[in-house]
Amino acid sequence: MDLPFDARKLDALMEKEGVDLLLASSKDNVAYLLGGYRFFFFAHKDAIGVSRYLPLLGYRRGSPEKAFYLGNSMESWQQEWEPLWVPEAANSHWHSEKAAKDAAGRIRKLGLGKGAIAVEKGFLPADAYLALQEELPDARLVDAHLILEELRAVKRPGELALLRQASEAIIDCMVQVMTTTPAGATTLDIAERVRKEEVQRGLHFEYCLTAAGPGWNRAPSARNRWERGRALSLDSGGNLHGYLGDLARMAVMGEPTPLMEEVMGEVEAIQMAARSAVRPGATGAEIFEKALAEQAKCPHKGELVFVAHGMGIIQHEAPRLTSAGVVPYPGPYESRPLEAGMVLSIETDLKNAEAGFVKIEDTVVVTPAGWEAYGDRARGWTVCAG
Amino acid sequence: MDLPFDARKLDALMEKEGVDLLLASSKDNVAYLLGGYRFFFFAHKDAIGVSRYLPLLGYRRGSPEKAFYLGNSMESWQQEWEPLWVPEAANSHWHSEKAAKDAAGRIRKLGLGKGAIAVEKGFLPADAYLALQEELPDARLVDAHLILEELRAVKRPGELALLRQASEAIIDCMVQVMTTTPAGATTLDIAERVRKEEVQRGLHFEYCLTAAGPGWNRAPSARNRWERGRALSLDSGGNLHGYLGDLARMAVMGEPTPLMEEVMGEVEAIQMAARSAVRPGATGAEIFEKALAEQAKCPHKGELVFVAHGMGIIQHEAPRLTSAGVVPYPGPYESRPLEAGMVLSIETDLKNAEAGFVKIEDTVVVTPAGWEAYGDRARGWTVCAG
Repeated sequence: MDLPFDARKLDALMEKEGVDLLLASSKDNVAYLLGGYRFFFFAHKDAIGVSRYLPLLGYRRGSPEKAFYLGNSMESWQQEWEPLWVPEAANSHWHSEKAAKDAAGRIRKLGLGKGAIAVEKGFLPADAYLALQEELPDARLVDAHLILEELRAVKRPGELALLRQASEAIIDCMVQVMTTTPAGATTLDIAERVRKEEVQRGLHFEYCLTAAGPGWNRAPSARNRWERGRALSLDSGGNLHGYLGDLARMAVMGEPTPLMEEVMGEVEAIQMAARSAVRPGATGAEIFEKALAEQAKCPHKGELVFVAHGMGIIQHEAPRLTSAGVVPYPGPYESRPLEAGMVLSIETDLKNAEAGFVKIEDTVVVTPAGWEAYGDRARGWTVCAG
Repeated sequence: MDLPFDARKLDALMEKEGVDLLLASSKDNVAYLLGGYRFFFFAHKDAIGVSRYLPLLGYRRGSPEKAFYLGNSMESWQQEWEPLWVPEAANSHWHSEKAAKDAAGRIRKLGLGKGAIAVEKGFLPADAYLALQEELPDARLVDAHLILEELRAVKRPGELALLRQASEAIIDCMVQVMTTTPAGATTLDIAERVRKEEVQRGLHFEYCLTAAGPGWNRAPSARNRWERGRALSLDSGGNLHGYLGDLARMAVMGEPTPLMEEVMGEVEAIQMAARSAVRPGATGAEIFEKALAEQAKCPHKGELVFVAHGMGIIQHEAPRLTSAGVVPYPGPYESRPLEAGMVLSIETDLKNAEAGFVKIEDTVVVTPAGWEAYGDRARGWTVCAG
């Protein structure tokens, strides 16, 4: 059976955790397992009527021919155009609890009433979880998150192509907005312009953090303005078919001050030090060591923060690179070797009372030869006329 | 305390259900209770790291001064610009389970460890629900959906203004796309053009159903084209600050055939018959009776389907107007009187082998004098050159 993911890896991860059946329920993981298929009607929202959209994909370890998919009643239309690999698709649900009961019945039919079922506890609503518990009282419901995250950690060429395209588009949007924004524009207007530019380029906008110096507040607001002589930090995420562009770039309206140039040099030196450690076989610890050693040499070291983490479908995902508290999601790749095809987000920011919030975030892909950065442009000060 | 919702109504609904504390967790309901506040960073996505964004708003019946809000660690930025009415906001979470444990501790402190807590079982992830169960073993966890839906059923003037603006924008987008699309364009391209038009007008796009006659498949596809002489059905939803424009309109490339004019007349007659019943005090049953009586007179009655339901923040919400199986969400307003400020979606479609899929969907607001329709233009065939 020709599957759009690495079924041997999935089977091995499930076996290691003693899991008999995986029941994916988050849109991201369902789309991953279906090779990019997402039901268009609920791509942006879940709520409908007294319940919600809840796609469920059941995968029996080692037996893709026994997989099932439960969708909404309108999904058959899309599957006529884009047939699923899953042999059994039942598109008949308008209610998460009923969808879960349907899944439970299929799990029982597979003889797994006493099996270990991995569910996405953060993305399975309580009513669906309670229905599984009730219908499968002898099953063991365990969390699927780490299995799915690890399955997705190495990106295939098609995924990398989307990540590259999304990253390039994000940079195009930022440069476009930075260089055409008039002095005194609010950060709310600026973020909205970024959103529109991203959508015009085919992306699905997710967010745009904005800081207009000298303040460090990064929430877009009608009460915050980008004035002449000030720095502007843009940090935006947008996805292309589910694959994220997520980068941060800096602009200044007018010429950068010597201090601005100095701190940008420090940020840049840390970013490049981190990259220099990236290669197959390197660990997260090596990346952090290189970056932190560079930071220690910087005059503004006390104002600087360096972080790095995996990304791709979700802003923070495998490989999670450090056990330190600098990122909200510590992880095992501090000491595990990176593999070609893993994708890292490398970020350095500085909070300076005069220069403002200064941040560069890059997307760096582990390649057989070392690394490659996507959207690797406009990395210093983009000088804007205003 | 000046609250952005009808606190007396909420207290009464909670009292009727014996609920001591409401714990809202869906983005839509949290935004409603916070007067439109939505954390921008997670407005489009929930997943982050090994968990997800989960805003939690706790409301003790009769005691807004004891309300609490639990947000993500980055939310304080936005709340600096947009202060919340909630007296106690703790923005420190990156994990749904931990947020729920935090909420449980606050619920215990309020003396409600044995209380009835209403949670959104369709929008509270399993890990958070299990944490509440564990931390509040003597509490009774009931479903909050009907309380919140009923609370939101009558729209305030500011909400109606957003609904009107969103509806007008949707019609503008549809007419723009219909009249500028060349013959042979795919429905995937057409839906993408609708998305871009909606975003350019400040909306947040949700979906665009497309059918290019004579087929009835409404999923946008690169394999389906709008050809000369054929009908195009567009049915798109997009929201403005959470309030939906959701309408359906028809175009034809070239002149409509006599059959097309005939079936459009039948659809239109049913739509207008339904409206004629709308006024404060009317029931859902009256609306269906008027529409179905009109349908019974139509030559193509067997090909026609009429439905009507409440809408506003969610495509199907209170007032749900019928107990019949024609809508996926039956409801109590079949026999309960409508109130001014309620918003209805009224839709009639026809599946004809020759004309294709023909549908008009209108947004009709109950007003003191009867009804008003938003975006009430381009309701016949929009004739396009191609």
